[in-house]
Amino acid sequence: MKIAPLSGFPEWLPQDRIVEQRVLDTLRSTFELHGFSGIETRAVEPVSRLLSKGETSKEIYLLNRLQGGDSQDAELGLHFDLTVPLSRYVLENAGKLDFPFRRYQIQKVWRGERPQDGRFREFVQADVDVVGADTLAFHHEIELPLVMVDALSKLPIPRVVIRASNRKVAQGFFDAIGIEDIEETLRIVDKLDKIGPRGVAETLAQNVGATEEQAQLALKLAEIRGNDASVADAVLALGFRNELLDEGLDELVRLIEGANELIEGSVTADLSIARGLDYYTGSVYESTLIGHEDLGSVCSGGRYDSLVSDGKRTFPGVGLSIGVSRILARVIGKELVSASRQVPTAVLVAVNNEDERRHAEKIAMALRSRGIATEVSPNTQKFGKQIRYAERRGIPFVWFTQDESGAVSEQVKDIRSGEQVAADEHAWMPPAEDLVAQLVSASHE
Amino acid sequence: MKIAPLSGFPEWLPQDRIVEQRVLDTLRSTFELHGFSGIETRAVEPVSRLLSKGETSKEIYLLNRLQGGDSQDAELGLHFDLTVPLSRYVLENAGKLDFPFRRYQIQKVWRGERPQDGRFREFVQADVDVVGADTLAFHHEIELPLVMVDALSKLPIPRVVIRASNRKVAQGFFDAIGIEDIEETLRIVDKLDKIGPRGVAETLAQNVGATEEQAQLALKLAEIRGNDASVADAVLALGFRNELLDEGLDELVRLIEGANELIEGSVTADLSIARGLDYYTGSVYESTLIGHEDLGSVCSGGRYDSLVSDGKRTFPGVGLSIGVSRILARVIGKELVSASRQVPTAVLVAVNNEDERRHAEKIAMALRSRGIATEVSPNTQKFGKQIRYAERRGIPFVWFTQDESGAVSEQVKDIRSGEQVAADEHAWMPPAEDLVAQLVSASHE
Repeated sequence: MKIAPLSGFPEWLPQDRIVEQRVLDTLRSTFELHGFSGIETRAVEPVSRLLSKGETSKEIYLLNRLQGGDSQDAELGLHFDLTVPLSRYVLENAGKLDFPFRRYQIQKVWRGERPQDGRFREFVQADVDVVGADTLAFHHEIELPLVMVDALSKLPIPRVVIRASNRKVAQGFFDAIGIEDIEETLRIVDKLDKIGPRGVAETLAQNVGATEEQAQLALKLAEIRGNDASVADAVLALGFRNELLDEGLDELVRLIEGANELIEGSVTADLSIARGLDYYTGSVYESTLIGHEDLGSVCSGGRYDSLVSDGKRTFPGVGLSIGVSRILARVIGKELVSASRQVPTAVLVAVNNEDERRHAEKIAMALRSRGIATEVSPNTQKFGKQIRYAERRGIPFVWFTQDESGAVSEQVKDIRSGEQVAADEHAWMPPAEDLVAQLVSASHE
Repeated sequence: MKIAPLSGFPEWLPQDRIVEQRVLDTLRSTFELHGFSGIETRAVEPVSRLLSKGETSKEIYLLNRLQGGDSQDAELGLHFDLTVPLSRYVLENAGKLDFPFRRYQIQKVWRGERPQDGRFREFVQADVDVVGADTLAFHHEIELPLVMVDALSKLPIPRVVIRASNRKVAQGFFDAIGIEDIEETLRIVDKLDKIGPRGVAETLAQNVGATEEQAQLALKLAEIRGNDASVADAVLALGFRNELLDEGLDELVRLIEGANELIEGSVTADLSIARGLDYYTGSVYESTLIGHEDLGSVCSGGRYDSLVSDGKRTFPGVGLSIGVSRILARVIGKELVSASRQVPTAVLVAVNNEDERRHAEKIAMALRSRGIATEVSPNTQKFGKQIRYAERRGIPFVWFTQDESGAVSEQVKDIRSGEQVAADEHAWMPPAEDLVAQLVSASHE
């Protein structure tokens, strides 16, 4: 049977998986330090729910049981993000959750892209959201991007800057300049990076009947950037104003100033950010991996006032999602980071002959009981060959149980330096940096 | 839209997810202590590969792209175990892996069971395997079950005992007593638990033409149990013998004696174990969760001489798989173990008024920087209400920044005892047992 990788379904070799696992652990521990509860939802949702929101509905994988016959399930599909599952989980468990509900979720998602498109069809996202019952205070719109900045700053990757805007600014402004179809306008402006200013102006004229002056004003708004209250002045200098716009500018300035006072350089205003999804109602976030702007946003999200409702209550929230696989594919692919060895093992216990194996296993058990990852040599080849077994895998230490005369004499050799010392399996520890594989970063230019 | 759980797709509330996550972390760290590399494979495999082995081929979920039209993919299905993906991964990466390749893999798998059957359709497995190129020494058949015993003994669950047999014993014995279709005989004996001795005898007569005497001998073999070399004597006492049987008995005794010398009570011989899957060729393992025998085997596996081959090389291996979801559903469902709180948070920083929020955020940042999971109160209600916010979630400490006169005075209250002390956010630590949520075990009867 022919074996070839499936395009769009990335997999790592063991050494690179160490990098991925370390990144996932760092994200998880940071989210928990901020008091977010981890949840894991099933991979599938009813198709009707997957189709109820957003613009990605075209890219769903449906499931069919091979032997389903006449008794097929209600139609199920693989989730394409972690927001639809969150909204369903909140509704399903509303009576058992305490609100505001702080949750993180790190899982694979699937998109039924065409194989030839070269896009990921399976990838990992890491989401944090705070969900309120009926109300949710604005300060969470400052808090959530900072959780992500904190998490991302601990990863062995280039620096990430969050860029933010506010839906109320764009909606208020478009309304003030007389544009009617505001949602479609947002979707068009969201494509600025892809189709350029000329393309945006033409599409605005075509799809929402914008005049040339309206289109130019929309583009001028999208040019505004800044790290302080001056962004509000720049917007008002365009000469339009209404209540929603004022409210949005107030929120945007509070976000930028509040975030940068807590973590300097964390969040910058960028009024070109529209976010195509309909459900955002306040702050919206994208982000840049510095030096890798071509990757696009690696962490995005926003505020939504009513992602879901059970008829009695609505559940507003704010959250962001990190595209973990997108970041990893870049930093591993460009060798910006790698693991110091292929295996978790710190010590290989050599075996001189099979009669000695049980003794070697006991040495290994003693080392493991003190947290030292240990393998016993699978063979009884010459010690030089056993050392090469360790070398090939990057295992730093080899433990020997016999001296040259054959007498029992526990010793451990650092195979990089060649230094060999007598050692007690109940006391010896490798240096901290050798205990587990380390991540090695190439210097960032 | 109606919300109801999907049968067969278990999900946990946040507090129970803490238990699951701790269990998964313990398995992972134990496997790494034994020098196994973690890998994660994509969720899908080509259907042709999923159908090429074993008896579970009926329970596959096939994928279809919702908007696939004429350009559907090569047929893909969700993996139903972690062995098929391992064999494919080994073939695909054989040139880049070092053998013997020690890998663990903890992932969800899916089975397209009928919804009404009440079985899991999505569940987590934790597998360890050692895979050799062309050869693999017998001692790994002693090593691998001990890895699982070590991992399972660290979980907050009742004790697990591995029960083992050897394919060569059964095959050699059936051959010696004159049965021809040995594979079908193994599959029938494997059903002993379900259909009973009478059912096995009848099915053997019907399907493989066994005489009553042959059927009774097969059942007598299946009755043999023991913890030492006496099991070999009991088999030979049935009066049949050949080379394969001798080899199998020798291996079985080496396994039982070797395993119990390293970890007493870890592995017991049970000749009723047949394992239905064709690819096992040596040791086979099942296991019992003591006091929960009705659950069936929670950890199973065996030795296979050629799970895969690339035409030039074959890849023998030995491995076991833990049914993590099966164990968790039982111990969480019966409340044998629970988490000491709902959230990771150890400290809630109270907020007296919104002007104070930024100060509270800085306190939280200082605590987090020293590894203390901290939330800032989402509201500025009376302190009694903020304390109840913490109480509801099981957060043990609340941090206050003002004394009654309104002057700044950092204090921390243990809300269980009511004790409140002055504290420095750069120095104070909670007791170790409050730093992270603890698992609480009900006493095992």
